[in-house]
Amino acid sequence: MRLRELSERSGVSTATIKYYLREGLLAPGRQINTTTAEYDEEHLRRLRLVRAMIQVGGVPVAKVREVLGHVDDDSLGRTIRMGAALWALPQVPEPDTEDEYVRAAGEEAERLLEALGWTNARSLITISPAYRRLVVSIAAFRRLGYDWETELLMSYARLMHEAAVLDLDFVETHGSEAEKVETAVLGVILAQPILQALHRLAQEEESARRYGFG
Amino acid sequence: MRLRELSERSGVSTATIKYYLREGLLAPGRQINTTTAEYDEEHLRRLRLVRAMIQVGGVPVAKVREVLGHVDDDSLGRTIRMGAALWALPQVPEPDTEDEYVRAAGEEAERLLEALGWTNARSLITISPAYRRLVVSIAAFRRLGYDWETELLMSYARLMHEAAVLDLDFVETHGSEAEKVETAVLGVILAQPILQALHRLAQEEESARRYGFG
Repeated sequence: MRLRELSERSGVSTATIKYYLREGLLAPGRQINTTTAEYDEEHLRRLRLVRAMIQVGGVPVAKVREVLGHVDDDSLGRTIRMGAALWALPQVPEPDTEDEYVRAAGEEAERLLEALGWTNARSLITISPAYRRLVVSIAAFRRLGYDWETELLMSYARLMHEAAVLDLDFVETHGSEAEKVETAVLGVILAQPILQALHRLAQEEESARRYGFG
Repeated sequence: MRLRELSERSGVSTATIKYYLREGLLAPGRQINTTTAEYDEEHLRRLRLVRAMIQVGGVPVAKVREVLGHVDDDSLGRTIRMGAALWALPQVPEPDTEDEYVRAAGEEAERLLEALGWTNARSLITISPAYRRLVVSIAAFRRLGYDWETELLMSYARLMHEAAVLDLDFVETHGSEAEKVETAVLGVILAQPILQALHRLAQEEESARRYGFG
């Protein structure tokens, strides 16, 4: 397809597409003559991914280029390629390991992974930004004087594992390896707000069931 | 307790506590003489809540005052008081209802609530910021050409309802009505990052189980 059709099918203006081409976020089309290039379905898919990261995810252009570099690197395993977007999203600052709450939270998180049997990706998990966020959040709760049984976190973790199984089952409905990886990257950016919204609505519904409202 | 002890037990500096007092985020202590006031456990609890909203949640001072106004308003039902923080968090812009994807997403969300039987809080749910986020996110996915069976969203929603049951069970372990409401408000701000982190870690673990990594 020509540039105009690519623009129509993606809903992205031709000026923006040209900008993405210049920035290397989109591979050049097949040059037919000096003024015309031909694009294919792969361009369209990639364009949607770039658009979603920038517009919905608010990911800066330089970061998008970095994520795509990982997505396209066949030498990396699928687990790492699929997680690429995760590492590119806003980072949590390194927790202060001198802080007693942070240290205790780190130990709690370790015990949690152990108890859950999440050992397959352990070396990946413990260096991931999500793990850092978990530790920082547990520490924040504890510092506020909140207490809970580890069993509660286990229950949440098991629910989230069920969600992860749904995520990956959905990813696997897509044909090619490239589509699988791209769907996983998109999922990180787009599925999260959906899950979060459903959680809030479920809280309101459950609360209304228990206490009524008004 | 005196100001100094309130500061030590909360980990908040006396200067910051004085600032919160001036801004009306914290009720004045019981004046013992012209220079000394006495604070109690309720002050400590409230101080922790304010601290969490500002430091962990990044909620602006004026918004904190607004949330506390709802938290303290006994004339509101518990469901609404508990949801107060939700409404104070960054708002999603009003979706463009002229947009065909937004319209279709709105219909899909309606059908979803119907199918789930989330009808108790319906009038509250459909005006809530979370509902707006749900519609906008579904529309973004659809616009990108992604398709899924409604059954998938139903499955996610059921998991999130299980999470909401855990949330409210935890809230109910707290004694007074005020503590229950405050715990719910804190949960909105602090529990979300924990759930999100667990979800990401579960994805990495499940992915490593299926595809290995490296």
